[in-house]
Amino acid sequence: MTKGTLYGLGIGPGDSDLITVKALKILKSVDILVYPAPLDGDSLARKIIDPHLDKKYTEIAIKMPLENSQFPSDEVYGEATTKISKLLDSGSDIAAICEGDPFLYGSFIYLFERLIKTEKVVVVPGVSSPMACAAILGKPLVTKNDCLVIIPGTLPEEQIIKKMEVAEGVVVVKIGRHIKKILSALKKSGLMDNAQYIERAGLKEERIVPLSEISAPVPYFSIIMAHRRGDAWK
Amino acid sequence: MTKGTLYGLGIGPGDSDLITVKALKILKSVDILVYPAPLDGDSLARKIIDPHLDKKYTEIAIKMPLENSQFPSDEVYGEATTKISKLLDSGSDIAAICEGDPFLYGSFIYLFERLIKTEKVVVVPGVSSPMACAAILGKPLVTKNDCLVIIPGTLPEEQIIKKMEVAEGVVVVKIGRHIKKILSALKKSGLMDNAQYIERAGLKEERIVPLSEISAPVPYFSIIMAHRRGDAWK
Repeated sequence: MTKGTLYGLGIGPGDSDLITVKALKILKSVDILVYPAPLDGDSLARKIIDPHLDKKYTEIAIKMPLENSQFPSDEVYGEATTKISKLLDSGSDIAAICEGDPFLYGSFIYLFERLIKTEKVVVVPGVSSPMACAAILGKPLVTKNDCLVIIPGTLPEEQIIKKMEVAEGVVVVKIGRHIKKILSALKKSGLMDNAQYIERAGLKEERIVPLSEISAPVPYFSIIMAHRRGDAWK
Repeated sequence: MTKGTLYGLGIGPGDSDLITVKALKILKSVDILVYPAPLDGDSLARKIIDPHLDKKYTEIAIKMPLENSQFPSDEVYGEATTKISKLLDSGSDIAAICEGDPFLYGSFIYLFERLIKTEKVVVVPGVSSPMACAAILGKPLVTKNDCLVIIPGTLPEEQIIKKMEVAEGVVVVKIGRHIKKILSALKKSGLMDNAQYIERAGLKEERIVPLSEISAPVPYFSIIMAHRRGDAWK
């Protein structure tokens, strides 16, 4: 029997229609879905693709806390990997869906590293949230000879500043409880007046707030973008 | 009469099915297409969407040289802007298509800067080539607290090295005739053994070549990716 294929599908950052035609075709061709989910409550990834599903799937939720330094848990991923391998061995194709792009901070990477040596894995790139946020804010990220840097807000302030300083286009991700430190880094880098904040981009809870009006903490799914020249085309 | 809307559509980096459902719906709703094209020959952007077009469009090609430090030409863009404004005034919606994502080094930015103050402009983000290349190469860009930097290969070598050094995930774009300098920067940054090269990703002319076998010059549409730990999940 031919083994099945594991598809790692980028499904975009929130708006259901930001899925690609390619990912959609694969979704319709498989019968098994794998997705990340919080310990309690609904999976955002599952919610994003919901309008596109028109049949019943076998669903495997990989449950884990959203912000956790011990993540990914070997126990949780080990269990999921065993289950997925068995299904692939039986000839089934599986779509593991992933918010944004699978390879840009994507949860899919933890399945990929565990399965790439033994299984057939195909990755379909997706629209990632920095690009989606830029589109919503109407602020181009980079032009011409600009350098773009994407920085996790979880890093120490002096490291954030050092990384901001080499680039014209700056994106800070994973903000959450790190917002105060990030605002301080923006000030010290001279980027405060050119920075924009957006949370839950593309979802109905989306909010764009002036940086001066932000009070800590903010949601984990928020982004700050800045361009050193104010507008990238200048 | 209601003015038309100018849509800036990211259409992905090459594979026609990497267009989003959202961009596709807009393509089908408009009657006028705007796209960049070389001075001679076919437009790559136009070629990418071709399989999705099932009616006749009014087509406006913005012709310009691919690599040109004088670009964007005020003359060429001024002319296109005038034409587009007139059509929007007459109530027509227009889709300006753009390879990859419109706001990540996208040609659409030059229309956006000229029209955003006077026209209704909606930007639809797209899959960008760094994510598509990572998927094809099977090499995750960044995980957890990694920093990602995207560097134009057109910069001086010492600047490239400085930017490489702040990040775990490194992408070099706009390579072309700058390949030798970039290889030297990779060596000096200790990234040579962890770097991958791909050209014309997602097109039928796609080529993945070991860095040791590359001879200058290479195509403009090529990318080098590297991760400081070899594999991002390590």
